[in-house]
Amino acid sequence: MSLDTAVKTPHDQLAEMLAADMAAVNALIRDRMASEHAPRIPEVTAHLIEAGGKRLRPMLTLAAARLCGYAGPYHVHLAATVEFIHTATLLHDDVVDESTQRRGRPTANLLWDNKSSVLVGDYLFARSFQLMTESGNMRVLGILANASATIAEGEVLQLTAAQDLATDEAIYLKVVRGKTAALFSAATEVGGVISGADEAQVRALFDYGDALGIAFQIADDLLDYGGTSAVIGKNTGDDFRERKLTLPVIKAVARAGAEERAFWIRVIEKGRQGDGDLERAIALMQRHGAMEAARNDALMWSAKARDALQGLPDHPLRDVLGELADFVVSRIR
Amino acid sequence: MSLDTAVKTPHDQLAEMLAADMAAVNALIRDRMASEHAPRIPEVTAHLIEAGGKRLRPMLTLAAARLCGYAGPYHVHLAATVEFIHTATLLHDDVVDESTQRRGRPTANLLWDNKSSVLVGDYLFARSFQLMTESGNMRVLGILANASATIAEGEVLQLTAAQDLATDEAIYLKVVRGKTAALFSAATEVGGVISGADEAQVRALFDYGDALGIAFQIADDLLDYGGTSAVIGKNTGDDFRERKLTLPVIKAVARAGAEERAFWIRVIEKGRQGDGDLERAIALMQRHGAMEAARNDALMWSAKARDALQGLPDHPLRDVLGELADFVVSRIR
Repeated sequence: MSLDTAVKTPHDQLAEMLAADMAAVNALIRDRMASEHAPRIPEVTAHLIEAGGKRLRPMLTLAAARLCGYAGPYHVHLAATVEFIHTATLLHDDVVDESTQRRGRPTANLLWDNKSSVLVGDYLFARSFQLMTESGNMRVLGILANASATIAEGEVLQLTAAQDLATDEAIYLKVVRGKTAALFSAATEVGGVISGADEAQVRALFDYGDALGIAFQIADDLLDYGGTSAVIGKNTGDDFRERKLTLPVIKAVARAGAEERAFWIRVIEKGRQGDGDLERAIALMQRHGAMEAARNDALMWSAKARDALQGLPDHPLRDVLGELADFVVSRIR
Repeated sequence: MSLDTAVKTPHDQLAEMLAADMAAVNALIRDRMASEHAPRIPEVTAHLIEAGGKRLRPMLTLAAARLCGYAGPYHVHLAATVEFIHTATLLHDDVVDESTQRRGRPTANLLWDNKSSVLVGDYLFARSFQLMTESGNMRVLGILANASATIAEGEVLQLTAAQDLATDEAIYLKVVRGKTAALFSAATEVGGVISGADEAQVRALFDYGDALGIAFQIADDLLDYGGTSAVIGKNTGDDFRERKLTLPVIKAVARAGAEERAFWIRVIEKGRQGDGDLERAIALMQRHGAMEAARNDALMWSAKARDALQGLPDHPLRDVLGELADFVVSRIR
């Protein structure tokens, strides 16, 4: 999940506009991930938190609060909360996916072990929970509690939906909300709630985060098959090898004839994959316009995110959030 | 951690006295562990939650609330919260300890897999968080947030303290508070807080839960070496084989001469264990009175728990909580 480009991205612009707030968030994160009793904790978390994470989620909270006119101080706590939840999720993902690389470094569970990843993740969840209670805002707590449940439910659903050709677009959307959009939408929504924004604005912030997260994840899933250009790069096909039912595959399966269906059953459900199977999968997705259809879905969600912003005050940060909505799908345009 | 006996235990008495409340707690647990989207979740949790768990922690919350005169309804939510946190912790322990049995059944991670245990544990944490926010009581949230952090910190500390002979009694106490006492004390404290009990009573409830948990865990650790009778049974020595620094070992190491210290370094730090080493470890603990000293500590904490109850209203439930404080150390008397 990289948002890198050579020019000044919306992300860079957010970082500039929110620099003072982000300095406070980073200081709070460093302070709260320390553990008097268990030095292992900052060892593990520093690895992840300082590993060039782009802090997109906390910046969403800060931006939402600022554009709703909030003067502070609890947007900082909530931004740190959101980053802790994100980091805890990454730690637990590392355990469960047996992934070997994250952000270009060895994952925590290779440098340390599964035990540390699970327990330090739990510690960060607990810390995030302490941070959010400091806001003293019960509605914020409810939003973050619901987001946490959606995230966990989505992760479990992904587990059971993988390798199952019965997984349809509705299930895919729930998985995507869990793994990406629920934390994006909670990040923006709590920024509005802590600011005392009116209900229409809070709803707009939720809708923006939700649509942004979905657009982002569909683009990511499409890029795993080389995007619509379908150029096979070195990371192409990771989802295929892990037999994940992502949107382009789901669309291709839905349009498959009997022979093609037998192919999908073999490579996804039974996991018997050989030379040329990835190429054939991509060819099938292209034949049925599955890549193009998934791309259109991503663009539609990106447009929805932009539309949601119209319900928010005119503000330079609103403009950058609009650019961000375009940016997350720029890799598949 | 079994509290079984043939006679009517304090646990049985609590179950009788709190039967109506516990029925409500069980109904709430069943309701909230359901997941519309991810049927894997109740599969995994039902396994743990219905596997004859004694529900000691939720009964502590209910008892605390009732003896402070609370009429409801949120003691039920908080009791379910506490049980969810406990169950989530067990699921995550299963992953990290590679344990094969819990409560006499195969653990979730053998029936399912590590992925399910981590993610379903996360789901239960999120559900517990939702349940507690329903109480609408910010102080209760702060207590449970702090307890969650103490639990996670204690688990990580145990990880780093294991196999390290520098682990002293102060570190042991922090580990024990994390793995056992923090949830006991939070369970009783929130029962008081939700009831609007005065500060002295809330403090007494915290102290009772804290001391009860510590007494319970020291007794458990002592029994792992056969208790003061040091009869070697089939489960004797699990902690020894896992090279855990529990209280009797810490006390024996503190009193060891050079030759004995070399033994402890070999079996605990280096993990080179052979025939007769468990017997020698037990003999060393007995020679230095380490077993007896650990037993005295457990009895002292049990007495502290009893003492704390004096700050609470005269009530039949208070009497049973007093018996419970005796009961947790009855196996080592």
